[in-house]
This record gives sequence, C-alpha cells and structure tokens, in this order.
Amino acid sequence: MDATEFRKRGKEVVDAIADYYESMADMPPLSTVEPGYLYKIMPLEAPEEPESFDEIQRDIQSKIMPGVTHWQSGNFFAWYPSNSSFAGILGEMYSAMFSVVGFSWLSSPAATELETVVMDWLGKLVGLDRRFLSIREDGTEGDGGGVIQGTASEALVVAMLAARDMALVGRRRAQGAATEKEGEEEDDGARSARLVAYFSDQTHSSGEKAANILGCRPHAIRSDGSYRLTKGALLDAVRRDRAAGLVPFFVCGTFGTTNTAAIDDLAGITEAARDERLWFHVDAAYAGAALCCPEFRPLARGIERADSFSFNPHKWMLTTFDCSALWVADSTHLVRALSVHREYLPRTKGTTSFAKDYRDWQIPLGRRFRALKLWLVMRTYGAAGIRAHIRAHVAEARWLEEQLVADGRFEIVVPVVFGLVVFRIRPGCLFDGGGSSSSSSEEEEAAANRANTELVQRANTDGRVFLLGSRLRGVDVVRVAIGGAQTSHRNVALLLEVLTKAADDIVPGR
Amino acid sequence: MDATEFRKRGKEVVDAIADYYESMADMPPLSTVEPGYLYKIMPLEAPEEPESFDEIQRDIQSKIMPGVTHWQSGNFFAWYPSNSSFAGILGEMYSAMFSVVGFSWLSSPAATELETVVMDWLGKLVGLDRRFLSIREDGTEGDGGGVIQGTASEALVVAMLAARDMALVGRRRAQGAATEKEGEEEDDGARSARLVAYFSDQTHSSGEKAANILGCRPHAIRSDGSYRLTKGALLDAVRRDRAAGLVPFFVCGTFGTTNTAAIDDLAGITEAARDERLWFHVDAAYAGAALCCPEFRPLARGIERADSFSFNPHKWMLTTFDCSALWVADSTHLVRALSVHREYLPRTKGTTSFAKDYRDWQIPLGRRFRALKLWLVMRTYGAAGIRAHIRAHVAEARWLEEQLVADGRFEIVVPVVFGLVVFRIRPGCLFDGGGSSSSSSEEEEAAANRANTELVQRANTDGRVFLLGSRLRGVDVVRVAIGGAQTSHRNVALLLEVLTKAADDIVPGR
Repeated sequence: MDATEFRKRGKEVVDAIADYYESMADMPPLSTVEPGYLYKIMPLEAPEEPESFDEIQRDIQSKIMPGVTHWQSGNFFAWYPSNSSFAGILGEMYSAMFSVVGFSWLSSPAATELETVVMDWLGKLVGLDRRFLSIREDGTEGDGGGVIQGTASEALVVAMLAARDMALVGRRRAQGAATEKEGEEEDDGARSARLVAYFSDQTHSSGEKAANILGCRPHAIRSDGSYRLTKGALLDAVRRDRAAGLVPFFVCGTFGTTNTAAIDDLAGITEAARDERLWFHVDAAYAGAALCCPEFRPLARGIERADSFSFNPHKWMLTTFDCSALWVADSTHLVRALSVHREYLPRTKGTTSFAKDYRDWQIPLGRRFRALKLWLVMRTYGAAGIRAHIRAHVAEARWLEEQLVADGRFEIVVPVVFGLVVFRIRPGCLFDGGGSSSSSSEEEEAAANRANTELVQRANTDGRVFLLGSRLRGVDVVRVAIGGAQTSHRNVALLLEVLTKAADDIVPGR
Repeated sequence: MDATEFRKRGKEVVDAIADYYESMADMPPLSTVEPGYLYKIMPLEAPEEPESFDEIQRDIQSKIMPGVTHWQSGNFFAWYPSNSSFAGILGEMYSAMFSVVGFSWLSSPAATELETVVMDWLGKLVGLDRRFLSIREDGTEGDGGGVIQGTASEALVVAMLAARDMALVGRRRAQGAATEKEGEEEDDGARSARLVAYFSDQTHSSGEKAANILGCRPHAIRSDGSYRLTKGALLDAVRRDRAAGLVPFFVCGTFGTTNTAAIDDLAGITEAARDERLWFHVDAAYAGAALCCPEFRPLARGIERADSFSFNPHKWMLTTFDCSALWVADSTHLVRALSVHREYLPRTKGTTSFAKDYRDWQIPLGRRFRALKLWLVMRTYGAAGIRAHIRAHVAEARWLEEQLVADGRFEIVVPVVFGLVVFRIRPGCLFDGGGSSSSSSEEEEAAANRANTELVQRANTDGRVFLLGSRLRGVDVVRVAIGGAQTSHRNVALLLEVLTKAADDIVPGR
C-alpha cells in the first residue's frame, strides 16, 4: 500500500470511525457470538499474496463487528467505562504516524518532553500537590513527576517495585547501624520474601497480582461496613505481621473501588504509612478523573502526602485506551528499581526533570508516544469541558438513584458519589406485597440474591443494555457504571425502563 | 468535536500521515533540540476552554516535529528498526475506533479470537513447531498458543513468571516425595530468592530487568568468541550455582543479540535446559522476523523444543509499534502465575483454545485490540511481501559489507547474517599507510577505539544519517542496523558515502 492508496483508504476508515460513533448512542452493547465463532470462518494461514483492502473492510464488517462488545455504546453500563473520543483517536493517529520508541530522551525528545509537560498539566487539573509535579509553578524542578503507563495494574507493579527498593535500602541502613543481630546476614532476596503489601478486600485484583509478580506477600485487610480500608485495621495488620517476623513495606489505598466506588480512609492511611514507614500508593483508576472537579477533592484528603498516585484518563476522561497516569513524589527509588546498568550506563546528557529517561519509570523498555492523545484531549475539551463531562454523569447517576428509590422495590446499597449506582431489589418486597422495609430473614436474603441475579440476567437478555452484578459479603447486588462517552440521559432512561420491566417479572404482586 | 468535524479533521490527519511518509525516505533522522526545549514554549497548564484543532495542528508542526527523532526515516540505522506501515496504521485506527478493553473473552470476543487466529498464522509464517499453536492443523486444541505483548521486555517477565511457577511446583513435589530434609520448611518466597535466571553477557538488558522485577538472581554468563551463549558455559554456571545452594530455573537464549545479532547455541541450550529442568525462553525480538524466510530457519535449530519464544513484529515486520509476539508450548504455568482468584473466579464459559482469557497471559488486566494491525499487515503484504521485505534488507546489508571490505580501511567484526553490519576502521591502517593486517599492538587498539568513536560521531554530525557505536570487550565498533520500512538502496549508498567521507578525515594518508 503506497501513500496514494493510504490517502484513499485512510479517509474511508475515518468515515467508518465517524459512522461507528454515530451509531453508538443506541447500539446494543453485548456481542451474542459463541466461543470459537471466528476460528470457524477464518483461513488457517496468512495469505501468500497480498489481499485488497476492500476484502479487509468487508471482513471487518462481516467477521469482526459481530464479535465486538461495544464498550463505546451509550448503553454500556458494565465494567467501568473506557472513554474513547475523537480527540483521543486523532492522538492515536499522530502517535502511529511518528511510531517512535521513546525509551530515552534522545530516542525522541518530543515524546519524552510532551509527556512531562502534559503530566504536569494533568496533575494540576486534578489538584495534585506540587510534590508530584516535575516542574513546579516557580520553575524549579521537583524530585518526582508523572509518567504514562498502559494500565493501573502496571502503575501498581511499578509503585510496588519502588517501595521494595525503599524497604531494602532502609533495612540495609538499619543493618549498617548495627541494630541487627550479629551473624544475621540476610540478603535482599530473602528479605523480599518477608515483605508484606497491604490492600483491602475491596482492592482491585491487580494489587494481589502485583504482589505475586514481585514475589512478596499480599495481605488483604477486611474493609469496614462501608467497604473502606481504615487506619485502625491497617495498623492492626501491620503490627501482627511485624510480630510474626514479616516486613510491612507497602499499602495501596483506593479512591473509588471497583465494587462500590468506596473511598478508603486515605487521611488515616497516610498517617499510618508515615509512622510505619510504608510506601503509600493511591489507586484512583476510575474515580481520579472526578478530581478535575474541585467539589470532589475534599473526599481525597490524604493523597497530598502519598508516595504515588495513579488514575486512568482512559476510563472516565475521554482519552482513548490505553492511558494510565502515575505520579511519584520522589522518583529516586522508582528509577533505581527499574534501571539496569545504573552504575555505568551513561544517561541522557543533562538528565533533569526536563529530559527524563522514561525507560527507568516502567517495566518495558520501549514506549509509545501516548502523551499526544492526552494533550489533544485536554486541549480539545478544555478543563471546563472535562469537568462538564464528569458532572453530567454524576447527575445521571443521582437521577437514577432517585428513580430507583421512588420505585419502592429497590434499595441503594452504597451512597452514590460518582457515576456508580449499586442497588438491589429489597428482600422485603419479594414476599406478600413487599411494602415492608424491616430487616429480612435468612430465607428472604437468599431469595433476594436469586432475584437480583435474575434481574441482571433479564436486563442483559433484553439485549439493549449491558450491566453487571456483584457480590458484597454474600449479598448479590446490581452494579451500574454510568460514564460512557456516548451515554446521555436517554440511555439512562432506557436502562431504568429495562430494569423496571425486569423487576415487574420478578417481584410478585405487580 | 462531533462526528462531522472528525470526518474533516481525521482526513486532514490522514493526509498529514501520507505527507510524513512521503518525506521520510530522505529525512534527517536525528532531532537537534536541547533538553527542555518544549517546556520553554508550552503553556504551564491545560487550557480552561476548548482550543481549535487548527491550533493543535500548527503546534504539531512547529513544536512537536522539531523534537521528533524520525525512526521512520530511510536514513535511520541506529537501534533496531521500528517498522511502521500504512497497513499497521490503519489497524491502529480500527483499534482506536473499537476501543475495547479485551481482558477476557466476553469483554470482546472478536479481540480475543482474532488474536488467537493471527498468532497461529504468525507462528506458521515463521515456521514454529506445532507445540506453540493454539489450534493445530488437524483442528485439535494445543496446550499452548500465542499472545501479543507490548514489548519483548514484557514477554520476558511473563515467561520468567511461568518459569518460577514451574520451579516452585517442582520443588513442592520434591518435598512431598520426602526427598528434602526434615524440618526444612522453606516457603515459596524464600525459595524464590534462591532462583537463578541465566543469560549471556550479550543478552538485552530486559533480561536482567525481568529478574530484578521478580526478585530473583540474574546470572550473566560470558559468551564465547562469537558472542554466543554455549551449552558448556551454561552447564558450568548451573552446576556451580547448584553447589552454592542456589536453584537454577530459567535460561534465555537469544536469536539475534542487540550488539552483534549473534545466535546463541539454541540446540545445545535446549538439551541443557531439559537435563537441568530449566524453563527455556528464546528471545528473537529483532531477528525472529527473518524466520518468515525458510533459508534462515536452520539457524534457529533448537527453538522447536523451547518453552517459550518471542519476537517483535513491530521491529522488522511492518507492524506499527507496539506488537511483541510471545508463544508458549504449555500455558499451564503461565496462566497460574498470572491469574488472580484462580480457584474461585469463574472463567469464561467454555474456556478453550478458542476462547482464552488473555488477562491471565500478561501483566496488565486491560489490553488493546492489537491483533487488528497484525492481521492487516499479514493480509496487505501477504507472506510473499513480508519475505521480500526481509530479503531486501539482508541483501543491502551484504552489499554494504562488500563495499566496506573492498574499501580496505574497514574490517567486518562479526559475519553479516541479517540486516546488521558491525565493523570498524582497522587498527593497522591508522599508522603508516595502513595496508597491514597483522595483529595490532595495544597502542594501535587504543587508537582504533578513538578512531571508531570519532567515525560514529562524524557520521552522525553530518546530520543525514543516524547510527550507533557499540563496545565489544573493550573494542569500539560501528553498528549499522538496516531494516527501516523506508530504507532502500539509495539510503544505504548515502550511508556508505557518509562513512567513507568520515573515514577520509580520520585515516591518515588518503
């Protein structure tokens, strides 16, 4: 394919993209194919000779499209959203154009420096403390800064690696000061095996996965009645583990958990982390985007003293997947944990906050020019546009909450704060007319679990919407995440209609 | 930006991409900006109100373009190439359109299944043993299969995690069989700290980085006179380490090292790995693409019995960065090492080779729809087109080798096999006319090092080409990687002209 044909084909794909998004507002989100559908209709080998792009375009429509779960549908309420936008797509196109592998400053100065600049922009947009900025307002260079990772999972691994480096250095210092018993010559590897990383039982699975990758011990602490990790529970766990000879080194607090959008006691955890010398990472993968709006910032008190903070602009901030933002207050441990040949490999000349070697801030060596799409999104929407996007979804979530409460058959399981609505059919209304709101028996709870599982199934079988159930301490709930870039009031009204109809078939006496 | 504006802007970007590639054949590859150039000309914050796309386009040209190191220039001979292509870019556009987060089969069946299909296509295209295929020619399901990772570094981490799982399970079995001493209750963490991963001193830095991430011990074995890891050296190292109480568990063999494109003794290593119960990973990041051509396959004898194999279609196989292909012969350990809640989280219904949950094959949870671009590349070029692409570069490398030899002042340091040419100004020709090919004194070697470092500097200062020097056991060499998608004979001829002219200024008496 030469440039002339690319001009033609590229423009056809641009139209295909526009058509796709114009159809997405009301597109049924779930694919209905069965496992193996594609294998049965695909050749067994790559073609020997070139095929025409006409054939490829036809196959996209006839073979790929039927198997796509449309995350961009306005009726997608399942996992947290993966906001794509035209600005983000244009950014991806420019990124593919340059196709640089920006592992060091020299390998593409623009890719490195634009990332530093836009991560400072984004940090200011969500109100981060200046400790996390590469270049502070007064022009001085910070010790920390931001970096784009692919996903919040990778951000967690990277933060945990920095934490491990800090923990091992700290222990070496303590040994040097002769506070350790004579003859106890434990090496870093053996010490690592005693390291403990703390989460709550509501923390995303990527926390446990990160600990598994590092080979340290994950410790999931039971969250409180509001599904929050508290300072007291953390301190209890840390002290028990220390007494057992283990080495606490890391704690992850979540701002907006996956199940309920709960906010851990970040202010309390930051104190505990300081006292117990733990690295404190805040995972705000989903809800971090809400911090663009000042009214949400009081909920995040404590993050200003965290060691690292991450959120995903690709979730709720219009930046086409993948774009996970990670900031550290001090990059010393991060860079030492992730750089190889750190003693003798020359780093980029004049390496400063202006010219980072981002290979030392991530797991891979190579990296895409992802800063472009984040830059395009912030400029195309402006801070005002991004805040309006967030607030519109929060308003829709509150509207849905009101309607569900007014219906009488539903109860809200956790308060609605962002765009997530967690509710269930009340156990009391499954028997005898259902007006009662008194506490329910074990039998009623079991019936409610069956009813709410059925509600999710019926709603998804309707085919027009896609949502998920979840289980909270034995209680089955319905989980609706409102935040798709194509999701407007019409979609939420449709969702309510589908839920109401499904409930009509489940709750007796209506 | 609405769909109507996107149609207009997207087409402008398509033209910008076509213009960019039309200018790339002869574009000076290296940016000449200084660190901090961008910060000085950028606003300190995101704009409050939306900006027009006209402004963004102007900034791409005036602010970004000057800081880009043009990896797609025909005159880029520095690191191994990062082939982009129009087919790959169209694939990226479709991927951005769907913007799915394909962590499980259900989250987007098409993304999962197309990846399984095209990884089988690619495996057959490079002649992999059927052990590595998801679905064999006879329609039966294999135990292994392929997965797309972002980079070869991630492939290495993932392979090493599978290896660790295998090593720990193996040791638990041995304990169960009462072959361990009574009372020796070592847990997995402490065992992990005694694990040793083997590489050669020529293995890419990502090997050591992967071991650091896992917290196991990297052991770099001295390569032989041809910079190859040999069976004998590996066995020596393994036996010494076992005697010291360590636990060998993993070896990485390289097919085409970074410095010299050396090929480790893969057939020997595969025997040693079997005898010593090591996981054998083959990293063919760069040279794996050459296996599309049957004439190169005898060089890779041994990989048919490896546990895992990876190469990067984004390097030399026209698939726009990022696309790193990894295959495993048996996914059991891989999936167990990387899945969380493996005992109780329900997996995709009917999970088979047709419907993988790829979240368990990688570090992150979320994943982009990268199979599209690989599919588009294989169809747009056809197997024949891809082989022609590889062979053209190999022919250019051999042509350059001949010219350098014929010049008389240069010597080829390692035989040219793929597209990499490693050479230097002969020490002998730096003194007294330079015809001598006798062995040189220490003084001559030092002078040669200075001369070859200067040769690289002068060639790059010329500004029209970009190449790198390297150091092999104290000997400074020049390293030219031929493989850019825009690189044709004209570019290699220009490179020779630049090198010849630089040598004229360095070698006396001409």
